[in-house]
Order: sequence, then structure tokens, then C-alpha cells
Amino acid sequence: MDYAKESLRLHAEWKGKIEVVATVPVETKDDLSLAYTPGVAQPCLEIQKDVEKSYDLTRRHNMCLVVTDGTAVLGLGDIGPEAGMPVMEGKCVLFKAFGDVDAFPLCIKSKDVDEIVNTIYLISGSFGGVNLEDIAAPRCFEIEKKLKEKCDIPIFHDDQHGTAIITLAGLNNAMKVVGKKKEDVKIVVNGAGAAAISITKLLLSDGYKDVILCDRKGAIYEGRKEGMNPIKEEMAQLTNKDKKAGSLADVLSGADVFIGVSAPGVLTTEMVKTMAKDAIIFACANPTPEIFPEDAKAGGAKVIATGRSDFPNQVNNVLAFPGVFRGTFDVRARDINDAMKIAAANALSSLISDEELSPEYIIPKAFDKRVGPAVAKAVAQAARESGVARL
Amino acid sequence: MDYAKESLRLHAEWKGKIEVVATVPVETKDDLSLAYTPGVAQPCLEIQKDVEKSYDLTRRHNMCLVVTDGTAVLGLGDIGPEAGMPVMEGKCVLFKAFGDVDAFPLCIKSKDVDEIVNTIYLISGSFGGVNLEDIAAPRCFEIEKKLKEKCDIPIFHDDQHGTAIITLAGLNNAMKVVGKKKEDVKIVVNGAGAAAISITKLLLSDGYKDVILCDRKGAIYEGRKEGMNPIKEEMAQLTNKDKKAGSLADVLSGADVFIGVSAPGVLTTEMVKTMAKDAIIFACANPTPEIFPEDAKAGGAKVIATGRSDFPNQVNNVLAFPGVFRGTFDVRARDINDAMKIAAANALSSLISDEELSPEYIIPKAFDKRVGPAVAKAVAQAARESGVARL
Repeated sequence: MDYAKESLRLHAEWKGKIEVVATVPVETKDDLSLAYTPGVAQPCLEIQKDVEKSYDLTRRHNMCLVVTDGTAVLGLGDIGPEAGMPVMEGKCVLFKAFGDVDAFPLCIKSKDVDEIVNTIYLISGSFGGVNLEDIAAPRCFEIEKKLKEKCDIPIFHDDQHGTAIITLAGLNNAMKVVGKKKEDVKIVVNGAGAAAISITKLLLSDGYKDVILCDRKGAIYEGRKEGMNPIKEEMAQLTNKDKKAGSLADVLSGADVFIGVSAPGVLTTEMVKTMAKDAIIFACANPTPEIFPEDAKAGGAKVIATGRSDFPNQVNNVLAFPGVFRGTFDVRARDINDAMKIAAANALSSLISDEELSPEYIIPKAFDKRVGPAVAKAVAQAARESGVARL
Repeated sequence: MDYAKESLRLHAEWKGKIEVVATVPVETKDDLSLAYTPGVAQPCLEIQKDVEKSYDLTRRHNMCLVVTDGTAVLGLGDIGPEAGMPVMEGKCVLFKAFGDVDAFPLCIKSKDVDEIVNTIYLISGSFGGVNLEDIAAPRCFEIEKKLKEKCDIPIFHDDQHGTAIITLAGLNNAMKVVGKKKEDVKIVVNGAGAAAISITKLLLSDGYKDVILCDRKGAIYEGRKEGMNPIKEEMAQLTNKDKKAGSLADVLSGADVFIGVSAPGVLTTEMVKTMAKDAIIFACANPTPEIFPEDAKAGGAKVIATGRSDFPNQVNNVLAFPGVFRGTFDVRARDINDAMKIAAANALSSLISDEELSPEYIIPKAFDKRVGPAVAKAVAQAARESGVARL
């Protein structure tokens, strides 16, 4: 199927993919007096006395804001706020279908960090949580950080943390397949965008020790002068303990794991050949991966994941965000912390039994009905255990 | 029924009155590839080329923002943004039920005019129109004015214009009942809040000539020193041609029409007795009107309307806003102008035939199924005729 052409045709026919519907009747005078005036004054007054009641008396408890500035939409880049809306609506469709989360799409006509933060903060009283989406790096890091400081509801940048959760889930299973331990493996993450940074941080948080992050100029290390920015400086502190310099090819030699969230074709069969035995390759550039699975295999790679649905082991964010927010909302968590993300990843890995586990099956399928509930349950429990649950 | 108690109980049971649902399937891999990646890139690119396409390829064409700062919620006053949300959700329920308009409720945590304006402007690319709600006067006037200048979508402050539309509709019919002409009658509007100002302006726009606006200090006239503000100064220019000073009672003597959107009990039987023969009384303070119908009748009033559903002739905004936005959205109007408001009022009046018309029936009932479509049709036509329709 020509997805581009057919999708455009359908979007013109659909004229929107979401709808706001009423869940209460307004068919009689009494209905109107209860759902609206004069009766509605009473719930208003209750919330005035205790703002927390807004979670019990309005839809806030289940309402997620899906918001973009339109600067990093899919692989299309900065296409403008309104042009990001078909993706935002699509995301809301998935939130509902896979997590029973009400999600509402918004685009913000600004590229100014503080203006974006302030706008989201000012409307945050209507939502139970915020899913940031398709905001360009490094601005996205600052926006997320400032929002977390300013808002009392959970903030989640899916391009970072969603991808990190699935990657960690897949990697944990891949490690089982090749029989290696997380303390021992050498990992190279290629790309210094939102996803790469978040993946690296989550791997470290989960106990992986040896990670080198590469951007277009090669390995990022403490003391590198060229092409740095605050987030890369921070990452240089956290990774690459031996301060290795060099190109991606240089540092990849002898590595056990390659994780690419970068650009098409940057990994070659030759480079894979220089990696350790039973190499694990996550080639997640979309739609054209860093290396195609058969080329990676030709280089000796044992387990290969991509972002595509037409190869095994798809790193697909829909596996994470619906369940993550479901679990977060179920316990009214005030944050989505690393413990919750790791719990989500472990829940995903655990859905594949040791018997089922294979190089072609390290990540559950997008339509596996167990995924949403399993992730939600694990996230809720981790929220409770880490002290951020309010229910 | 004890509406307050029962409404609170129901709100706690409902846990929200709206839901965001998907209107497209996501049950197969193909579904996902069409509603989301990779297919969704194509509609995004179309909108990037032409932002106007956002109306065709997303839900924007039917999506109304219902937004408050929580400063004038019902008769409760400044109860805070979150506390206004049960009303906003209720409004969204009515939008859907009576106009098939998707409406989404937001509260803004600010009382600063420019901050509120900027916030709404920055998110306006996701909506087809904005319904301002329960924002205190005189701030609401400035917010509406600035938004109209800044945004390219229609802005409508329902507390002003919705009420004005119904009042005009009712008054036009009341005039028929008493056999008076709009050029001849003397009208006193009591209250200087959002609704009173807008009613006065719409009456003048529709051809009523002699209107005096009163606030708590009595008649507003050019040159008055006490208790004025920019909007009252403006109104002093537009009304009270003879610059009459005095109390409400003073200027009401000899008047044909009293329109109150003010405070309980400010109108007495004695005052009504001083009015012209066959006086028309709109006593819309809620829940306790300026005068109860039987007291007004005792003073000789011929036609009486209130804001309550338990008396005849209820001035109920639900008669206007769903149809107004339906009509506006149907022709993708860039503004909701006076011509459209007057057309809405005339559509409402016309639903009552000359045979049906009586002192007890000048305004259609809230559940009259003809109302929404009739208003929508008239509004759409007026938008076309006044050159603001884009379809």
C-alpha cells in the first residue's frame, strides 16, 4: 500500500481523528440543571475549597495534554505548529485505544522555551499530565526540565522516554539471548538528539556501565571542544569514562551493542564486523535504518531491532506511552521517574517468556493486548514504591 | 430536587462529563500506518504547504476552545481556574448535544490580560474558534478585543453575546406582543457587567434608539465622574442621549422596557408602576431575579422574562451558542459579527409564530429541537452576506 497517498486520502475523508463527546445525558430540564446550572455550582465550590478535588469532579484525572511546537515532527523537522497536528491527533487516538487515556492535542505557536513552558503551565490545571511531542533538541530538554520544576503534574517527553523504555526492554531481552551481563557490555549510542540522550541516561540508571555517545563528529568525551552544548557536556560527564575520542567506527570496534537513533545508513557491515561476538544492533532511524537487518547479520550481528514494522523487533513507542500514562493516572502520580520507566521496560521484557525469546523476538508486538495493562500495572506499582503516587 | 446536593453526588460518580474518543480504527498494522506513522507524514506536509488545510485534515474545523480564568464563574465570582472546570465541561457537553460542536474545556492560571491573550493566541492553531467563558468584567472586554485583533479565528464571549442574542430575540417578540416599535421605546438596562454592555450594544446595533444603562450608582451618562471605567465611558457615548442622571428608579419612570442583568430584588412593584403601559421586564439575575414575575405583574408589566427555567420565557444561553458556533464553523467564518448575532436572534424569534406568540411565550424552549439548526442556518447565511465566511 502507498501509505502516504492513502493516508492523505483518508485524512481528507476523516476530517480529524478525534472527537470530544459528552458522557452525561442532557435530555431533560433536570439533566441540564444537574450537569450545568444551577447544580454545577456545588462541585465548583468543592474544588474552590480543595483544588485536589478537581481530579474527582472533572475529567482531569484521565486527561493528558499532547503538545508540540511543531519543530521536530516525525522525521520531517520544523514544519510548523499546525502541521504537527495530524501526528498529535494520531497520538491521542493511540492513547485512547491502547491506554484508555483521554488525550487532547495542542500545538503552540512559539519556539521560545520560556513562552512554551509558561503556556503549558498556565493551562496545566485542566490536565492530569503532559506528553511533550516532537519538540526539537536541545530545546526539548530545557522545556521538560522547567516544566517539571513549575508544574505539579507529570511531564513526559515521549520522544525521549518512550523510546528509551522500549529500547531498554529490548536490550534486556537481547542480553539474555546472547548471554551477556549488563555490567560487562560496551555500548555505543549514536545520535545526540532527544531519544539518544534519554536512552543513554536510562541505560545508566538501569545499571549499564560502559556507554559511549556519538554525534556526527564522533565520540562525545569530557574535554571535547567542537560541537558541544550543555546537554552534551552533561552527557560527557556521565558516559565514556575512558574519554575515548574518535569516529563512530573507531569507538564501535570491540563494542557489544550499537544503538542508533541517528541517520540512515551510517552503520556498515564492515563496522559491524569489528564489534564483539554476538553483537546487538538497534538501528532505529526511520524509515531508513542505520543499517538494514540483513547487512547487520552479514557483519555477524546476532540480534537486530529497528523502528520498522516490516522487520522483527520493532521499537515502537506505542508499547510504552499508553500504559505509562494509564499507570501514572491510576495512582495519580506526581511524576514519571526513572523507577517507573525501568518498571515499564521490565514489564515489557517479561511479556516474552524464556521459551519464546529469540533473536527475532525480544520486543512484544504493538497489538499484543497484554502490553498496556502490564506496563500500567508495573508503572503504578513503581510510582507507589518510589513515593510519587498520590492514590 | 436539591440540585446542589444531587449534582455534587453525580459529579463524583461521573468523574468528568466529557471524553476524547478516536473516530478512526487502530486495530491492524495498516490502520496504525495510516492514522499514524509513516502515513501521517503526508497530511502534515500538506498543512506545512498551506496552513488552511489544517481545517480539512484535522478536527480543527469543528473544535471550539471553551476557556476561562475562573474569575466570574456563574454567580460565584472569582473561585479560581480549576474550580471553573465543572462549568467549562458542562458547556462542552451542551456544545456537543445542541450543536454537534466538539468543544474542549481549559482553565488558565492567570488574571493578567496580556498573559491570557497570549496563551490563547499561542494555542489557537488547534481550534476553529474560541468561546470565552466566565471571565470578570471589565477584563473580559479587553481580552476579547485583543484576541480578535491577534487571532485569525472567531472569538466569542458567551456571557456577553450569548445573553445579548437571547435577550434581543425575546425583546423583539415582546415588542410584537405589546404592539410597540423599536424606534419608539425607552429601554433601561440595569447592570454594567459583560452581559449588560453587550445587550446594550446589540440592541443599538439592531435599531433600538433610546437606551439608558445603569450601574449601582444609577444612570451612566456622559460627564459622570464617579465609578466610571473605559467601557462605561464608551457606553456613555453610545447611550443616554439626553445625559439623564439619577437613580435606577428615576430613569425607569416612563420607560417601556427594563432589562436587568444585575442583582436580586433591585426592582420593586412600585418602580414597575411608574413605567409606561404594557411594560416589558427582563429580570435575569440568577437564581434570584431583580423582581419575581408576580410582583412585576402586580406593577402592571405585560411581558416578563427571567433566567430561570421554572418561569415562562427563560433567557437561556444554550439557545444561542451551540447554533452560533455550528453556523460559524459550517461556513468557516473568520469572525462572529453583529450581523450574525442579530441573525441568530431573529432566527430564535421567528420560531414562535404569530399565533403562538403570547406574553408567556416569547422565547423558544431550551429543548426545542428546531433551535440549533435554525440558529446555525441564519448565522451561516449572515456570515456569507457580511463577507466573513471562508466557505
